[in-house]
Amino acid sequence: MDNEEVLARLREFGLIIYEQLKRGEFPRVKIKSRTISNIVYDPNLRQFILGDRIITRSAANVRQIKSLTQLVWVAFFAYKSLSANQPTTLRDLYYNSEAFGIKFRDQKESNEIVADLETVLSVPREDFMIFPEERSAVFGDLTIEYTSPDPDYYGKKINLASHPDGMMIGPSLLTAEFVECNANKVIAIETGGLFTRFISEKVHKRFNAILVHTAGQAPRATRRFLRRLNDELGLPVYILTDADVWGMHIAMVIISGSANAAHLTELNTPDAKWMGVWATDITRYKLPTEPMNQEDLNRLFLLQKDPRYQDPFWAREISEFIKIKRKAEQQSFSRYGLSYIVEKYLPDKFSSLE
Amino acid sequence: MDNEEVLARLREFGLIIYEQLKRGEFPRVKIKSRTISNIVYDPNLRQFILGDRIITRSAANVRQIKSLTQLVWVAFFAYKSLSANQPTTLRDLYYNSEAFGIKFRDQKESNEIVADLETVLSVPREDFMIFPEERSAVFGDLTIEYTSPDPDYYGKKINLASHPDGMMIGPSLLTAEFVECNANKVIAIETGGLFTRFISEKVHKRFNAILVHTAGQAPRATRRFLRRLNDELGLPVYILTDADVWGMHIAMVIISGSANAAHLTELNTPDAKWMGVWATDITRYKLPTEPMNQEDLNRLFLLQKDPRYQDPFWAREISEFIKIKRKAEQQSFSRYGLSYIVEKYLPDKFSSLE
Repeated sequence: MDNEEVLARLREFGLIIYEQLKRGEFPRVKIKSRTISNIVYDPNLRQFILGDRIITRSAANVRQIKSLTQLVWVAFFAYKSLSANQPTTLRDLYYNSEAFGIKFRDQKESNEIVADLETVLSVPREDFMIFPEERSAVFGDLTIEYTSPDPDYYGKKINLASHPDGMMIGPSLLTAEFVECNANKVIAIETGGLFTRFISEKVHKRFNAILVHTAGQAPRATRRFLRRLNDELGLPVYILTDADVWGMHIAMVIISGSANAAHLTELNTPDAKWMGVWATDITRYKLPTEPMNQEDLNRLFLLQKDPRYQDPFWAREISEFIKIKRKAEQQSFSRYGLSYIVEKYLPDKFSSLE
Repeated sequence: MDNEEVLARLREFGLIIYEQLKRGEFPRVKIKSRTISNIVYDPNLRQFILGDRIITRSAANVRQIKSLTQLVWVAFFAYKSLSANQPTTLRDLYYNSEAFGIKFRDQKESNEIVADLETVLSVPREDFMIFPEERSAVFGDLTIEYTSPDPDYYGKKINLASHPDGMMIGPSLLTAEFVECNANKVIAIETGGLFTRFISEKVHKRFNAILVHTAGQAPRATRRFLRRLNDELGLPVYILTDADVWGMHIAMVIISGSANAAHLTELNTPDAKWMGVWATDITRYKLPTEPMNQEDLNRLFLLQKDPRYQDPFWAREISEFIKIKRKAEQQSFSRYGLSYIVEKYLPDKFSSLE
């Protein structure tokens, strides 16, 4: 969504409050409930969404007046940051509230109100320029054009293969336009070590791929970027993680989103594929493994009941993990030589998945 | 150190072993001991260094033959990776050893042998292209020229302000030459949120600064990059962290190095300065704080005895932290508005430190 449209939605939100006040009414806002009981998995959209329950925040209710005021202030903060083209974080917002006499118990409370605003406007906070702390990176033959109003960059173009250590995924990249792309797929990689090695082994050329480093669990900004690569350029997205329950879930969150973000629909890439390293790859490739600990197993039992994992492919991989009780890392392919993963594993996988 | 020199040192190491074997001797290697009792703080170099104790690893000793073999293999691995211009990680090395029948109990053991090789050759592992997992970033008006043998990049130049989300610090940047720099200082920043905001607020222009994102504790590659900016370009380095014991120590490790890296001398920047956020800044700027927990306090008591913290400035800041028992974040300046840290705090600090 471009800045003008987001600013328009924020103004509209303000206008509704203003009109209510002008009519002499207590201002109130309707919000889809984000409580667990109202989060449902939608098999068509292939992600979690909010159900039909609506709650009202009204200034006429003494228990709601505080959160309504906080919500209006967060909208004001978002409007101000976006108008000034000033990227911020959830932490900045929390601290800045003090200057305005807006009380939050802690940052958890202010984060919740930001999620409320996302829900009311159907706009992810990144579009208000409120970014996460984590940073991830990209490398590949895609030329972008900056559209942020900064005159030093507006209209300038750069190719994302310009710097072979990778370019950061941040506000400027997220709002840039895609001008020209010579890749035909995306590989999202969990670890920095493998991301760097793939660049040096020319995986981007040999497989015509844009490489994305998720740096563990992909930050929301990275998940949006992957979605855009898939939506706007039609590139299939393949996710390569460690062969353990945490790596598997990194892939799942990119594909099906998280319950926490059930109120937003532009953060996941339903057609992305977990290419590996699968539980079944551990046996197939005789990878060096480590035993799972109790936390790994508990997590597997939990995910076994999760609606996102009901599909036969995912169910099979979970069963296999539970059966072998072992896990392996992306880098464990190095036991066969450093280039094995590029020379053998990637071609195997692409020929079976494409 | 350039690749040719590192390769020459590795060949020389191999030659010594070879000559010993040719003379019919059991091969042996002398290594400075890295045990705690041999790590001393050198007030002239302003960092930890190794003392005079030397140990010998000899194939004639049945208890040393394994670690000597591991050391020779690690040198072989380093030679191979560097010759192939193939960046790797400590993890890759650990897994790759299996292919050669070299047994390591766990990765801790293989990491130790890598440190042995660093010690023997006085070469940090990054010069063997063995990189850490963590990635950090840089932004600023510095033009570099790639020198890595990759024909796609060799001899190409790029300005590190080309991408306003930041460029990653990795193998290519570390080995690049600095061609032209229009900055007169470096600011190393702990958090990603502030790094991004500084770029959007044009801190690089207003203060003629190169901005480095340390992403928490600076990875070794980042510490070497800071050292190079200081050594080769003569730029003063200022470090901006959270006002807590962990932030203070991020600065200290950049300045004085760590005991773990006492066998290396090119990783720290003795003239770098911790610009803030100091314990005494918490009171001066009336920052929003959080109470310290017991872990914070224990860490302060420990560092109070550390030789690196004996200087009056550091001792004062530790005492202040212990007195107020509170901590604050970089982003807590946002209580005075998002631009306050740039408009007020940075100018204050530079005028008192420069």
